[in-house]
Amino acid sequence: MHTEENLALFQSIVQPTLLLDERRAKANIAFMAAKAQKAGVRFRPHFKTHQSAEIGEWFRPHGVDAITVSSVEMAAYFAAHGWLDITIAFPVNLRQIDALNDLARRVRLGLLVESAHSAAFLAAHLNAPADVWIKIDVGAGRTGLPWDHPERLLPIVEAIRATPCLCLRGLLTHAGHTYGAGSATAVRRIYTDTLHRLESPLALLQQASGRELEISVGDTPACTLVDDLSGVDEIRPGNFIFYDAEQYLWSTCRAGQIAVAVACPVVAVHPERETVVVYGGAIHFNKDFTTYQGQRAYGLAALPTAQGWGEPLEGAYVSALSQEHGLVRVPRAWLDSIKVGGLLVILPAHSCLAVTALRRYLSLDGRVITTMTA
Amino acid sequence: MHTEENLALFQSIVQPTLLLDERRAKANIAFMAAKAQKAGVRFRPHFKTHQSAEIGEWFRPHGVDAITVSSVEMAAYFAAHGWLDITIAFPVNLRQIDALNDLARRVRLGLLVESAHSAAFLAAHLNAPADVWIKIDVGAGRTGLPWDHPERLLPIVEAIRATPCLCLRGLLTHAGHTYGAGSATAVRRIYTDTLHRLESPLALLQQASGRELEISVGDTPACTLVDDLSGVDEIRPGNFIFYDAEQYLWSTCRAGQIAVAVACPVVAVHPERETVVVYGGAIHFNKDFTTYQGQRAYGLAALPTAQGWGEPLEGAYVSALSQEHGLVRVPRAWLDSIKVGGLLVILPAHSCLAVTALRRYLSLDGRVITTMTA
Repeated sequence: MHTEENLALFQSIVQPTLLLDERRAKANIAFMAAKAQKAGVRFRPHFKTHQSAEIGEWFRPHGVDAITVSSVEMAAYFAAHGWLDITIAFPVNLRQIDALNDLARRVRLGLLVESAHSAAFLAAHLNAPADVWIKIDVGAGRTGLPWDHPERLLPIVEAIRATPCLCLRGLLTHAGHTYGAGSATAVRRIYTDTLHRLESPLALLQQASGRELEISVGDTPACTLVDDLSGVDEIRPGNFIFYDAEQYLWSTCRAGQIAVAVACPVVAVHPERETVVVYGGAIHFNKDFTTYQGQRAYGLAALPTAQGWGEPLEGAYVSALSQEHGLVRVPRAWLDSIKVGGLLVILPAHSCLAVTALRRYLSLDGRVITTMTA
Repeated sequence: MHTEENLALFQSIVQPTLLLDERRAKANIAFMAAKAQKAGVRFRPHFKTHQSAEIGEWFRPHGVDAITVSSVEMAAYFAAHGWLDITIAFPVNLRQIDALNDLARRVRLGLLVESAHSAAFLAAHLNAPADVWIKIDVGAGRTGLPWDHPERLLPIVEAIRATPCLCLRGLLTHAGHTYGAGSATAVRRIYTDTLHRLESPLALLQQASGRELEISVGDTPACTLVDDLSGVDEIRPGNFIFYDAEQYLWSTCRAGQIAVAVACPVVAVHPERETVVVYGGAIHFNKDFTTYQGQRAYGLAALPTAQGWGEPLEGAYVSALSQEHGLVRVPRAWLDSIKVGGLLVILPAHSCLAVTALRRYLSLDGRVITTMTA
């Protein structure tokens, strides 16, 4: 028997549907908020993961009043929903100066700068006050000024000084290399290195600006796994609200903390090659992958239960995605539980991207929760 | 000088924007329509690539009145825009039976079946006429009945016979293994193998059903590169309308045939590691990749020109995508042409997925063209 037959919720699902376990998400929020409070650091959660005004409200009871977003549009959306202190954690996009001016008039706006050119442009064109964070690359290699060339901060400080509209706030980094670091020990070591690597740029910056400045860090693996976060001024984790298959496989979280999953109709079963085909493809998950049992895995698989979904099925994973198809490798032992016309629940490799692709949630009690794009 | 300064179009772009070269797309349509006509086969283009009612109209002057889609929602969208003969080229999703019944009453609907279970379910629950295509796997290994076990067709034929609503139309396959076949010769060999592998299932099916049946094939590499398509009854290519970086790198198309690209604001330049950071990430491109110079490449890069965009810059490619960031490796020779605040044009690895992610086009003459989701 399909357990989903017990649940009106699952009976109503006819296409790939983003399920949200509200209880788990709220527990994840409470965990991180308590951790920040204990360390005495500002909790400025990254809202790019959930992208939902309604879910944003779940942070307020924990005293959260400052948030992080990844785009100007996302800042405008959350500003319209009552958030008044917003950092756009993305190198400032000069082409959106009109929208930035509009935002800066309405909220306390934090911008990321990593070149004197951008700082000078803001000094010339921003006509309302904004905070400036200088983006430092502590080793992730994505973007930012290299931590070991602190002298390159100085022209930025000079450019910021040219206008009273810009307030230098501090150094911001995203140690993205904790993703895939391999172990909790490695994540903690990267975190320690991060703080160490920020010391010399911070000292130089405080000297040059004559002000006390802050440090902002932000990756979910470190914020989850490091016991004492008191060495920084604020943390900006995002993914922790839902976690995902990748964080589970890296032992950042337990399976029982994963708060979103995608219910997918089963459209074919190929027992001879232990493969199930689901309606749920690259346009629903985004084609990001992690590694499971040495293989590329776009997600893990679970069965629907009366409570939501079960533990990940041992040995089962999404092995390929095309536009609408998902191919799920399912060991023979589980195949009897999966029928054409039934549902399989996929834990996406990367929850942030699946949320962006699917654009709305179905909570386990049957409520539709919207995001900024739906 | 940035050439984009010459163009009001580029000046207006402030965020990742899907550019459409209408002239190229129409030339690609004309090429494929002429090829089908010459071979005497039905041209049933796959509309999952463009997903746009307006672009769909560009096919009508070529006598196209039958289309392919990849989901029930897409079928409903194009049915609402006057398309009356629609094949849903995806294993029939039994959970959407209500929507299928609704569609079957309004259009000539083609469904894909690959199990007796699904055929029996349709026989029991479909209450308006529909065509049935049996999906055959000729070697791509995604889904479908294996070509070398034709006896497995027989229970499906039996189930279809149980109702006058279902009309067996023929065999349908998608030789997805032409993607990445490596050469035009390899693509042509796969095409020849495909036809050969369909012979025995077709003979058995015609014998069992007592009817003349059709063959439908559909991948862009084969439909582009095979000279004579007269061995089949219909072709269903989709990607050819835009092509993309991957098809270009595989020599399926020339660079001058690529009809969509994404204009991305430049937010950082790191000359020391020959990297440009653009606003344009996994949520804009989808995280699909191809291989360029032995590296994982999410796209190629070009400069904006007065005509649209130039040839791909030799040696430049998108090396990494995070949620909103794109990292573009750009050889030193081109770096002087790229400034923070300017634009870089990215030719996505996979145009179908970028279109789905970005949801609307900007034509080179400045018109916004919508899709089914925007």
